[in-house]
Parts: sequence; structure tokens; C-alpha cells
Amino acid sequence: MTDRTIRHFEEELEQLKTRLLEMGGLAEDRLSLAMQALVKGDQRRVDEVIGGDGAINGLHIEIDDRCFKLLALHQPMAVDLRSIVAAVKINTDLERVGDLAVNIAEAVRRYLRHPPVKELIDIPRMAGIAQSMLRDSLDAFVRRDTALAQAVLEADDALDALKTQVFRELLTYMLQDPRTIEPALDLILISRHLERIGDHATNVAEDVIFMVSARDVRHSEVRDVRE
Amino acid sequence: MTDRTIRHFEEELEQLKTRLLEMGGLAEDRLSLAMQALVKGDQRRVDEVIGGDGAINGLHIEIDDRCFKLLALHQPMAVDLRSIVAAVKINTDLERVGDLAVNIAEAVRRYLRHPPVKELIDIPRMAGIAQSMLRDSLDAFVRRDTALAQAVLEADDALDALKTQVFRELLTYMLQDPRTIEPALDLILISRHLERIGDHATNVAEDVIFMVSARDVRHSEVRDVRE
Repeated sequence: MTDRTIRHFEEELEQLKTRLLEMGGLAEDRLSLAMQALVKGDQRRVDEVIGGDGAINGLHIEIDDRCFKLLALHQPMAVDLRSIVAAVKINTDLERVGDLAVNIAEAVRRYLRHPPVKELIDIPRMAGIAQSMLRDSLDAFVRRDTALAQAVLEADDALDALKTQVFRELLTYMLQDPRTIEPALDLILISRHLERIGDHATNVAEDVIFMVSARDVRHSEVRDVRE
Repeated sequence: MTDRTIRHFEEELEQLKTRLLEMGGLAEDRLSLAMQALVKGDQRRVDEVIGGDGAINGLHIEIDDRCFKLLALHQPMAVDLRSIVAAVKINTDLERVGDLAVNIAEAVRRYLRHPPVKELIDIPRMAGIAQSMLRDSLDAFVRRDTALAQAVLEADDALDALKTQVFRELLTYMLQDPRTIEPALDLILISRHLERIGDHATNVAEDVIFMVSARDVRHSEVRDVRE
């Protein structure tokens, strides 16, 4: 490659990263809106999440397109190639996070038809963890920071533990009072959606580690990659 | 590219497809085993699914590696480039199907601790649809068959309708008899896992349509791509 095509490639790669961060920001906003709808019992926010995934879907297609162009026109190697393939995967994960925000909003809509089951503490906490994981995994991608990516993998355990706790607690409510069955079911589904958002952040973190170190931490029992 | 490198590339691409079909076969087998465990109440099959995702995880890494080598060494263009990027995505989807089979087996393990809620009809039906979708989407990939891919997208609606029906029916059981709450919850989770397997097959089908026609059918309301 000539100096000029290298400079052009690097500019394009920077733009790709910017767009991915934008996509991550949109996904995070939608999750945050769905959670506000739940906590504040706000039907208007529910509608906003369900009706408005146009921006994220448009960005999904645009980012994919950028990745294909970079692969076809610049034929990158090594870490650059791994970065672009990682971007394709991360793009897919972020789009799913947007879909999951819609799923959460749908469950919130049903939940709001009933009296509240209980004060919500652990579910907003799960959402907070999932959001941090998402943000950190994207920061790790942009900064090629494997230590931060590793921290995301570790946070996922906390999310799983909360999910189990939420499940047990809601099951107790359902067994004690059948009127709570329907709304408690929706809270359980919401906690599962939040867990899946954490899984997507985990995927991003694993992709970052592979991109930087060409080391595959997926499917390994010990996921400590610090050296 | 010389004739020889072209031939080599095409051989490698064929091998990649074969490995993806193998991966799809493994994922399907594991789903089938988890469903047999449920229908027959067979704890041994539960353990087999939970303990044995080594082969699928190994293949996941191998296929990813093949894709990277093809991209780096042959710098493919147009439909070849789209096929390899599709293979990366499909590989991820199939690995998730394997994970979902484990999730189903975990729910079956809990389910089998209780007396059965009801005769299972719709859930095995859902599994049958999800399996066909998976198989058809991979056949569509190998044969570059957009009509078959389109049929997979349409089958997903049937799966969603069954999921809603299963949910309503199980909710009725839970409301009528609190002793069914725990096992019915696990059946609801199983139906959600099956729905997600259908979503992964849908992703594969969408990737096939994009690969063949370079037309993006994701996020379009009307998904009819037949011409």
C-alpha cells in the first residue's frame, strides 16, 4: 500500500470505530429508556422504545457495509483484518442488544397492567451492570485494551448471580400469591433479557481479546489473559 | 490469482462449507438430544448435553480460523468475500444454538424433578420447526438458494405463534394449580430457547440472501426477495 492508501485506510478504520461507538450509545440509550419505563411505570417510554429502532437498524446496515468495503478495497492483514472481522461481529451483537431493549419494553408493557409485585432493586442493578459491561467492552475495542475486556468477562458472573437471585425471589412471590404470577413472569423474562445483554457484551470482550492478541479465550475454562 | 491458487481457494471454500454443515449437524443433534431428554424424562441424556459441548466449541474455533486464513491469504472479492463473512456469522449462530441446547437441558433437569405438568405437544412441535429451519438455512447457504432461505424466514412466524400459545396455556395451568408453577416456568423457558434457535436460523437465512444477492433483507418490513 502507498502512504496515501494507508492513511485513507486508517481514516476509514477510525470512522468505523466512531460509528460502532455511536451504535453502542444508541443501544445503551434504548436499554436505559426501557428500564426507566419499568421503574417509573411510564407507558410513553415503552412506546418510544418499541416504535423507534429505526436509527439502530440503519446504523447496523451502514456499519456492515463499511466493513465489507474495507475488506474488499484494502485487503487488510493481521490485526487490521481481525479488527474488521471483530467489527462485523460486534455490530451484530449491538443490534441484538437493541432488539433485547424492545423485548424488555414489551414485557414492561404487560407488567404495567398489573399492580407492582415488589419494589425493584435487583433488576435495575442488573441493568446497571449490563450497561457498564456494554460500555466497557466497546471502550476496550476502541482502545484495544485487553485488561478492560477481561474485566467485562468477570462482571458477567455478577450478572448471572443476580439473575439466579431474582428468579428465586420471584418464584417465592408466585408460590405465595397467585395474583403475582403474571407480572412476576414478566420480571423473570426481563431479567433473562438483561442477562443476554451481558452475554453480548461478553462476546464483544472476547472478540477484543482475540483481535489484540490473536488468542482465543472462547471456550476456555480459565479466561485470564493478563500477562 | 493463478489457476492453481483459484483451485486451491475453491477447495478451501468447499471444506469450509463442509465444516459448517458438520457444525450445524452437531448443533442439531444436541437440540434433538435435549428434546428427547424432555419427552422421555431421561436424565442420562440431560447429562450428555450438558457435559458434551467440546466438539462444537472446537469446531467453532477451527471454522473461525479457516475464515481468517481465507480472507488473509486469498483476499476474495464480491460473492466470495460475502460468503466468507457470512460463514463467520453463521459459525457464531451455530455455536449459540449449541449453547441454547445446554440451556434447554438445564431447564429439563429442573423440570424432571416435578410431576409432569401436561402432555407435551406444542413444545416438541416447536423443536421440530426450529430443527427444520436450522437444516434448511444451512442447505440454503451451501446451495446459495435464496428461495429456501426465504422459506426459513416464513417458518419463523409459525414458531413465534406457537411460543405465544405455549405461554398462554402454561399460564392457565399456573393460575389454576400453584404446584405447576415451577415446572411450567421451565417449560416457558424451554419454549423461549427454542424460539431463539429459530432466530439464529433466521439470521443464517438473512445472511444467505445477502451473500447471494447483496441485498439486505434485515430490518425490512416486507421480506419477500423472490424475483
